[in-house]
Amino acid sequence: MNYFAPSVETLIDEFAKLPGIGRKTAQRLAFHVLNLPEADAQRFAQAITGARASVHTCQKCQNLTDSDLCPICSNPARDAQTVCVVADPKDVAAFEKTREFKGLYHVLHGTISPLNNIGPEDIRIRELLQRIAEDNVQEVIIATNPDTEGEATAMYLARLLKPFGIRITRLAYGIPVGGHLEYIDEVTLTRALEGRREL
Amino acid sequence: MNYFAPSVETLIDEFAKLPGIGRKTAQRLAFHVLNLPEADAQRFAQAITGARASVHTCQKCQNLTDSDLCPICSNPARDAQTVCVVADPKDVAAFEKTREFKGLYHVLHGTISPLNNIGPEDIRIRELLQRIAEDNVQEVIIATNPDTEGEATAMYLARLLKPFGIRITRLAYGIPVGGHLEYIDEVTLTRALEGRREL
Repeated sequence: MNYFAPSVETLIDEFAKLPGIGRKTAQRLAFHVLNLPEADAQRFAQAITGARASVHTCQKCQNLTDSDLCPICSNPARDAQTVCVVADPKDVAAFEKTREFKGLYHVLHGTISPLNNIGPEDIRIRELLQRIAEDNVQEVIIATNPDTEGEATAMYLARLLKPFGIRITRLAYGIPVGGHLEYIDEVTLTRALEGRREL
Repeated sequence: MNYFAPSVETLIDEFAKLPGIGRKTAQRLAFHVLNLPEADAQRFAQAITGARASVHTCQKCQNLTDSDLCPICSNPARDAQTVCVVADPKDVAAFEKTREFKGLYHVLHGTISPLNNIGPEDIRIRELLQRIAEDNVQEVIIATNPDTEGEATAMYLARLLKPFGIRITRLAYGIPVGGHLEYIDEVTLTRALEGRREL
Protein backbone atom coordinates (compact mmCIF):
# COMPACT_ATOMS: atom_id res chain seq x y z
CA MET A 1 0.00 0.00 0.00
CA ASN A 2 1.26 3.46 -0.90
CA TYR A 3 0.20 6.26 1.39
CA PHE A 4 2.11 9.05 -0.34
CA ALA A 5 2.04 10.61 -3.79
CA PRO A 6 3.84 8.42 -6.40
CA SER A 7 6.83 10.75 -6.78
CA VAL A 8 7.19 10.93 -3.00
CA GLU A 9 7.12 7.12 -2.84
CA THR A 10 9.79 6.99 -5.57
CA LEU A 11 11.98 9.34 -3.58
CA ILE A 12 11.47 7.32 -0.38
CA ASP A 13 12.33 4.13 -2.31
CA GLU A 14 15.55 5.66 -3.58
CA PHE A 15 16.62 6.76 -0.11
CA ALA A 16 15.70 3.34 1.31
CA LYS A 17 18.13 1.71 -1.16
CA LEU A 18 21.06 3.43 0.57
CA PRO A 19 23.03 1.25 2.99
CA GLY A 20 21.90 1.49 6.60
CA ILE A 21 18.83 3.59 5.73
CA GLY A 22 15.57 1.94 6.74
CA ARG A 23 12.08 2.82 5.57
CA LYS A 24 11.38 5.30 8.39
CA THR A 25 14.65 7.17 7.95
CA ALA A 26 14.12 7.20 4.18
CA GLN A 27 10.71 8.82 4.82
CA ARG A 28 12.28 11.45 7.04
CA LEU A 29 15.00 12.22 4.50
CA ALA A 30 12.50 12.38 1.61
CA PHE A 31 10.31 14.88 3.46
CA HIS A 32 13.36 16.91 4.32
CA VAL A 33 14.24 17.11 0.62
CA LEU A 34 10.64 18.01 -0.29
CA ASN A 35 10.82 20.92 2.13
CA LEU A 36 14.12 22.19 0.73
CA PRO A 37 14.14 25.27 -1.50
CA GLU A 38 14.07 24.18 -5.16
CA ALA A 39 17.69 25.33 -5.67
CA ASP A 40 18.97 23.21 -2.77
CA ALA A 41 17.21 20.10 -4.07
CA GLN A 42 18.71 20.78 -7.50
CA ARG A 43 22.16 21.13 -5.98
CA PHE A 44 21.79 17.83 -4.15
CA ALA A 45 20.73 16.01 -7.33
CA GLN A 46 23.53 17.73 -9.22
CA ALA A 47 26.10 16.57 -6.65
CA ILE A 48 25.02 12.97 -7.22
CA THR A 49 25.18 13.01 -11.02
CA GLY A 50 28.23 15.30 -11.00
CA ALA A 51 30.27 13.11 -8.68
CA ARG A 52 29.20 9.94 -10.42
CA ALA A 53 30.16 11.38 -13.82
CA SER A 54 33.44 13.11 -13.00
CA VAL A 55 35.01 10.73 -10.50
CA HIS A 56 37.29 7.98 -11.74
CA THR A 57 40.38 6.28 -10.36
CA CYS A 58 43.84 7.88 -10.32
CA GLN A 59 46.08 6.43 -13.04
CA LYS A 60 48.75 5.76 -10.47
CA CYS A 61 47.33 4.98 -7.05
CA GLN A 62 43.76 4.01 -8.08
CA ASN A 63 42.27 6.37 -5.50
CA LEU A 64 39.12 8.24 -6.57
CA THR A 65 39.86 11.57 -8.22
CA ASP A 66 38.48 14.22 -10.58
CA SER A 67 41.78 14.66 -12.45
CA ASP A 68 44.19 12.28 -14.24
CA LEU A 69 46.51 12.05 -11.26
CA CYS A 70 45.13 12.49 -7.75
CA PRO A 71 46.40 15.44 -5.62
CA ILE A 72 48.59 13.09 -3.56
CA CYS A 73 50.29 11.38 -6.52
CA SER A 74 50.85 14.71 -8.27
CA ASN A 75 52.37 16.33 -5.16
CA PRO A 76 56.18 16.43 -5.67
CA ALA A 77 56.71 16.83 -1.91
CA ARG A 78 55.49 13.28 -1.25
CA ASP A 79 57.94 10.43 -0.96
CA ALA A 80 57.28 8.28 -4.05
CA GLN A 81 59.51 5.47 -2.81
CA THR A 82 57.10 4.44 -0.06
CA VAL A 83 53.71 3.04 -1.04
CA CYS A 84 50.98 2.32 1.51
CA VAL A 85 48.54 -0.30 0.21
CA VAL A 86 44.97 0.09 1.45
CA ALA A 87 41.71 -1.62 0.59
CA ASP A 88 39.49 1.42 0.28
CA PRO A 89 39.58 5.18 -0.53
CA LYS A 90 38.22 5.83 2.97
CA ASP A 91 41.41 4.31 4.38
CA VAL A 92 43.46 6.91 2.51
CA ALA A 93 41.46 9.61 4.27
CA ALA A 94 42.12 7.90 7.61
CA PHE A 95 45.90 7.96 7.03
CA GLU A 96 45.88 11.52 5.71
CA LYS A 97 44.17 12.66 8.88
CA THR A 98 47.20 11.51 10.90
CA ARG A 99 49.38 13.96 8.87
CA GLU A 100 52.24 11.55 9.56
CA PHE A 101 52.51 9.56 6.37
CA LYS A 102 54.41 11.32 3.58
CA GLY A 103 54.50 8.52 1.00
CA LEU A 104 52.02 7.57 -1.71
CA TYR A 105 49.09 5.17 -1.56
CA HIS A 106 47.76 2.32 -3.58
CA VAL A 107 44.04 1.59 -3.31
CA LEU A 108 43.10 -2.04 -3.98
CA HIS A 109 39.32 -1.37 -4.05
CA GLY A 110 38.56 -4.48 -2.06
CA THR A 111 40.23 -7.48 -0.45
CA ILE A 112 40.57 -11.06 -1.61
CA SER A 113 37.44 -12.85 -0.43
CA PRO A 114 36.80 -16.36 -1.78
CA LEU A 115 33.42 -16.44 -0.03
CA ASN A 116 32.27 -13.43 -2.04
CA ASN A 117 33.95 -14.66 -5.21
CA ILE A 118 36.54 -11.89 -5.15
CA GLY A 119 39.90 -13.19 -6.33
CA PRO A 120 43.27 -11.43 -6.75
CA GLU A 121 42.37 -10.45 -10.31
CA ASP A 122 39.24 -8.60 -9.12
CA ILE A 123 41.14 -6.00 -7.09
CA ARG A 124 43.86 -3.59 -8.25
CA ILE A 125 46.86 -5.87 -7.67
CA ARG A 126 48.03 -5.88 -11.29
CA GLU A 127 48.33 -2.08 -11.18
CA LEU A 128 50.37 -2.34 -7.97
CA LEU A 129 52.83 -4.79 -9.52
CA GLN A 130 53.19 -2.54 -12.56
CA ARG A 131 53.92 0.48 -10.34
CA ILE A 132 56.57 -1.37 -8.39
CA ALA A 133 58.18 -2.61 -11.60
CA GLU A 134 58.16 0.84 -13.26
CA ASP A 135 58.67 3.31 -10.40
CA ASN A 136 61.51 3.23 -7.93
CA VAL A 137 59.45 1.89 -5.00
CA GLN A 138 61.59 0.95 -2.00
CA GLU A 139 58.99 0.00 0.60
CA VAL A 140 55.44 -1.30 0.47
CA ILE A 141 53.44 -0.93 3.68
CA ILE A 142 50.51 -3.31 3.61
CA ALA A 143 47.69 -1.59 5.48
CA THR A 144 44.67 -3.76 4.83
CA ASN A 145 42.26 -4.25 7.74
CA PRO A 146 43.30 -6.64 10.52
CA ASP A 147 40.41 -9.01 9.74
CA THR A 148 40.42 -12.39 7.98
CA GLU A 149 40.15 -11.03 4.47
CA GLY A 150 42.58 -8.18 5.10
CA GLU A 151 45.11 -10.62 6.56
CA ALA A 152 44.72 -13.06 3.69
CA THR A 153 45.21 -10.24 1.19
CA ALA A 154 48.29 -9.04 3.09
CA MET A 155 49.79 -12.54 3.08
CA TYR A 156 49.05 -12.96 -0.62
CA LEU A 157 50.63 -9.58 -1.46
CA ALA A 158 53.70 -10.24 0.69
CA ARG A 159 54.38 -13.48 -1.16
CA LEU A 160 53.72 -11.86 -4.54
CA LEU A 161 56.03 -8.89 -3.86
CA LYS A 162 58.91 -10.90 -2.41
CA PRO A 163 60.71 -11.37 -5.78
CA PHE A 164 61.01 -7.58 -6.15
CA GLY A 165 63.53 -7.56 -3.32
CA ILE A 166 62.01 -4.46 -1.69
CA ARG A 167 61.00 -3.83 1.93
CA ILE A 168 57.51 -5.16 2.68
CA THR A 169 55.98 -4.16 6.00
CA ARG A 170 52.67 -4.52 7.78
CA LEU A 171 51.07 -2.14 10.30
CA ALA A 172 51.87 -2.95 13.93
CA TYR A 173 49.29 -4.86 15.96
CA GLY A 174 48.72 -3.94 19.55
CA ILE A 175 46.41 -2.31 22.04
CA PRO A 176 44.58 0.75 20.68
CA VAL A 177 45.52 4.03 22.34
CA GLY A 178 42.94 4.89 24.99
CA GLY A 179 41.68 1.29 25.12
CA HIS A 180 41.03 -0.65 28.33
CA LEU A 181 43.04 -3.83 28.75
CA GLU A 182 40.08 -5.68 30.24
CA TYR A 183 38.03 -5.19 27.09
CA ILE A 184 40.73 -6.18 24.62
CA ASP A 185 40.48 -9.63 23.03
CA GLU A 186 43.16 -12.24 23.68
CA VAL A 187 44.52 -12.28 20.13
CA THR A 188 45.20 -8.55 20.19
CA LEU A 189 46.74 -8.80 23.64
CA THR A 190 48.98 -11.69 22.53
CA ARG A 191 50.10 -9.62 19.52
CA ALA A 192 50.75 -6.61 21.76
CA LEU A 193 52.87 -8.78 24.02
CA GLU A 194 54.80 -10.24 21.09
CA GLY A 195 55.43 -6.78 19.70
CA ARG A 196 56.51 -5.22 23.01
CA ARG A 197 59.29 -2.65 22.88
CA GLU A 198 62.04 -1.42 25.21
CA LEU A 199 61.17 1.81 26.98
CA MET B 1 41.46 19.58 4.95
CA ASN B 2 39.86 17.67 2.09
CA TYR B 3 41.02 14.12 1.61
CA PHE B 4 38.74 13.29 -1.30
CA ALA B 5 38.29 14.60 -4.81
CA PRO B 6 36.29 17.89 -4.89
CA SER B 7 33.16 16.36 -6.42
CA VAL B 8 33.25 13.58 -3.82
CA GLU B 9 33.55 16.20 -1.07
CA THR B 10 30.59 18.05 -2.57
CA LEU B 11 28.52 14.88 -2.52
CA ILE B 12 29.53 14.11 1.08
CA ASP B 13 28.62 17.71 2.05
CA GLU B 14 25.19 17.33 0.47
CA PHE B 15 24.49 14.07 2.30
CA ALA B 16 25.77 15.56 5.57
CA LYS B 17 23.14 18.32 5.28
CA LEU B 18 20.35 15.75 5.66
CA PRO B 19 18.82 15.52 9.14
CA GLY B 20 20.40 12.87 11.38
CA ILE B 21 23.21 12.13 8.91
CA GLY B 22 26.67 12.76 10.36
CA ARG B 23 29.93 13.14 8.48
CA LYS B 24 30.86 9.43 8.66
CA THR B 25 27.46 8.25 7.45
CA ALA B 26 27.52 10.88 4.71
CA GLN B 27 30.87 9.46 3.59
CA ARG B 28 29.47 5.94 3.52
CA LEU B 29 26.41 7.04 1.52
CA ALA B 30 28.51 9.06 -0.93
CA PHE B 31 30.79 6.09 -1.63
CA HIS B 32 27.76 3.90 -2.07
CA VAL B 33 26.41 6.28 -4.69
CA LEU B 34 29.80 6.46 -6.42
CA ASN B 35 29.78 2.67 -6.72
CA LEU B 36 26.26 2.58 -8.18
CA PRO B 37 25.81 1.91 -11.88
CA GLU B 38 25.48 5.25 -13.71
CA ALA B 39 21.78 4.60 -14.44
CA ASP B 40 20.97 4.03 -10.76
CA ALA B 41 22.72 7.25 -9.72
CA GLN B 42 20.77 9.08 -12.43
CA ARG B 43 17.52 7.60 -11.16
CA PHE B 44 18.30 8.72 -7.61
CA ALA B 45 19.06 12.28 -8.73
CA GLN B 46 15.94 12.22 -10.91
CA ALA B 47 13.78 11.14 -7.97
CA ILE B 48 14.95 14.17 -6.00
CA THR B 49 14.31 16.78 -8.69
CA GLY B 50 11.19 14.95 -9.89
CA ALA B 51 9.56 14.80 -6.48
CA ARG B 52 10.56 18.36 -5.63
CA ALA B 53 9.10 19.64 -8.91
CA SER B 54 5.86 17.65 -9.14
CA VAL B 55 4.73 17.51 -5.53
CA HIS B 56 2.41 20.19 -4.20
CA THR B 57 -0.42 20.27 -1.67
CA CYS B 58 -3.89 18.87 -2.33
CA GLN B 59 -6.45 21.66 -2.96
CA LYS B 60 -8.72 20.18 -0.35
CA CYS B 61 -6.79 18.45 2.44
CA GLN B 62 -3.38 20.11 1.92
CA ASN B 63 -1.63 16.71 1.92
CA LEU B 64 1.27 16.34 -0.53
CA THR B 65 0.17 15.04 -3.91
CA ASP B 66 1.12 14.86 -7.61
CA SER B 67 -2.43 15.65 -8.82
CA ASP B 68 -4.96 18.43 -8.12
CA LEU B 69 -6.86 16.37 -5.58
CA CYS B 70 -5.03 13.71 -3.58
CA PRO B 71 -6.13 10.04 -3.98
CA ILE B 72 -7.91 10.13 -0.61
CA CYS B 73 -9.93 13.30 -1.30
CA SER B 74 -10.87 12.08 -4.79
CA ASN B 75 -12.01 8.67 -3.55
CA PRO B 76 -15.87 8.71 -3.45
CA ALA B 77 -15.89 5.76 -1.03
CA ARG B 78 -14.42 7.91 1.74
CA ASP B 79 -16.72 9.59 4.26
CA ALA B 80 -16.39 13.31 3.49
CA GLN B 81 -18.32 14.29 6.62
CA THR B 82 -15.50 13.29 8.97
CA VAL B 83 -12.23 15.21 8.83
CA CYS B 84 -9.15 14.13 10.78
CA VAL B 85 -6.82 17.09 11.37
CA VAL B 86 -3.10 16.17 11.53
CA ALA B 87 0.07 18.23 11.71
CA ASP B 88 2.11 16.39 9.10
CA PRO B 89 1.75 14.27 5.92
CA LYS B 90 3.54 11.44 7.76
CA ASP B 91 0.65 11.35 10.22
CA VAL B 92 -1.75 10.66 7.34
CA ALA B 93 0.36 7.63 6.43
CA ALA B 94 0.24 6.48 10.07
CA PHE B 95 -3.59 6.61 10.10
CA GLU B 96 -3.91 4.98 6.67
CA LYS B 97 -1.83 2.05 7.89
CA THR B 98 -4.49 1.27 10.50
CA ARG B 99 -7.04 0.79 7.64
CA GLU B 100 -9.67 1.83 10.16
CA PHE B 101 -10.28 5.46 9.33
CA LYS B 102 -12.64 6.01 6.38
CA GLY B 103 -12.96 9.81 6.53
CA LEU B 104 -10.84 12.54 4.98
CA TYR B 105 -7.82 14.36 6.39
CA HIS B 106 -6.66 17.91 6.80
CA VAL B 107 -2.91 18.48 7.01
CA LEU B 108 -1.91 21.61 8.96
CA HIS B 109 1.79 21.43 7.98
CA GLY B 110 2.94 22.33 11.45
CA THR B 111 1.64 23.24 14.88
CA ILE B 112 1.29 26.57 16.61
CA SER B 113 4.62 27.25 18.30
CA PRO B 114 5.22 30.73 19.70
CA LEU B 115 8.82 29.80 20.58
CA ASN B 116 9.56 29.13 16.92
CA ASN B 117 7.50 32.10 15.74
CA ILE B 118 4.82 29.91 14.19
CA GLY B 119 1.39 31.42 14.69
CA PRO B 120 -2.08 30.24 13.61
CA GLU B 121 -1.72 32.09 10.30
CA ASP B 122 1.45 30.13 9.42
CA ILE B 123 -0.25 26.73 9.29
CA ARG B 124 -3.20 25.64 7.14
CA ILE B 125 -6.00 26.64 9.51
CA ARG B 126 -7.65 29.08 7.10
CA GLU B 127 -8.08 26.27 4.57
CA LEU B 128 -9.67 24.09 7.28
CA LEU B 129 -12.21 26.77 8.20
CA GLN B 130 -13.09 27.25 4.54
CA ARG B 131 -13.60 23.49 4.10
CA ILE B 132 -15.89 23.27 7.11
CA ALA B 133 -17.88 26.28 5.91
CA GLU B 134 -18.26 24.99 2.34
CA ASP B 135 -18.47 21.21 2.67
CA ASN B 136 -20.92 19.33 4.82
CA VAL B 137 -18.43 18.39 7.57
CA GLN B 138 -20.09 16.82 10.61
CA GLU B 139 -17.11 15.86 12.77
CA VAL B 140 -13.56 17.15 13.14
CA ILE B 141 -11.14 14.77 14.87
CA ILE B 142 -8.15 16.72 16.13
CA ALA B 143 -5.17 14.39 15.88
CA THR B 144 -2.19 16.62 16.56
CA ASN B 145 0.64 15.10 18.63
CA PRO B 146 0.11 14.78 22.40
CA ASP B 147 2.94 17.22 23.15
CA THR B 148 2.82 20.85 24.29
CA GLU B 149 2.53 22.36 20.82
CA GLY B 150 0.12 19.71 19.58
CA GLU B 151 -2.10 20.25 22.62
CA ALA B 152 -2.01 24.02 22.27
CA THR B 153 -2.96 23.73 18.60
CA ALA B 154 -5.79 21.32 19.49
CA MET B 155 -7.13 23.74 22.11
CA TYR B 156 -6.92 26.66 19.71
CA LEU B 157 -8.72 24.73 16.96
CA ALA B 158 -11.43 23.47 19.33
CA ARG B 159 -12.25 27.03 20.37
CA LEU B 160 -12.14 28.27 16.77
CA LEU B 161 -14.44 25.53 15.48
CA LYS B 162 -16.99 25.74 18.27
CA PRO B 163 -19.23 28.30 16.45
CA PHE B 164 -19.77 25.85 13.56
CA GLY B 165 -21.84 23.66 15.88
CA ILE B 166 -20.25 20.43 14.66
CA ARG B 167 -18.76 17.54 16.63
CA ILE B 168 -15.14 18.19 17.66
CA THR B 169 -13.19 15.26 19.10
CA ARG B 170 -9.65 14.50 20.18
CA LEU B 171 -7.81 11.17 20.08
CA ALA B 172 -8.04 9.15 23.31
CA TYR B 173 -5.13 9.26 25.74
CA GLY B 174 -4.04 6.10 27.51
CA ILE B 175 -1.49 3.37 27.79
CA PRO B 176 -0.02 2.26 24.46
CA VAL B 177 -0.82 -1.32 23.44
CA GLY B 178 2.12 -3.57 24.34
CA GLY B 179 3.55 -1.00 26.75
CA HIS B 180 4.74 -1.81 30.26
CA LEU B 181 2.97 0.01 33.07
CA GLU B 182 6.21 0.53 35.01
CA TYR B 183 7.71 2.53 32.16
CA ILE B 184 4.69 4.72 31.53
CA ASP B 185 4.87 8.30 32.79
CA GLU B 186 2.43 9.49 35.46
CA VAL B 187 0.56 11.91 33.21
CA THR B 188 -0.27 9.17 30.72
CA LEU B 189 -1.27 6.82 33.51
CA THR B 190 -3.51 9.47 35.05
CA ARG B 191 -5.18 10.03 31.67
CA ALA B 192 -5.59 6.26 31.18
CA LEU B 193 -7.28 6.06 34.58
CA GLU B 194 -9.57 9.01 33.83
CA GLY B 195 -10.55 7.48 30.49
CA ARG B 196 -11.17 3.96 31.84
CA ARG B 197 -14.03 1.99 30.35
CA GLU B 198 -16.42 -0.76 31.47
CA LEU B 199 -15.41 -4.23 30.33
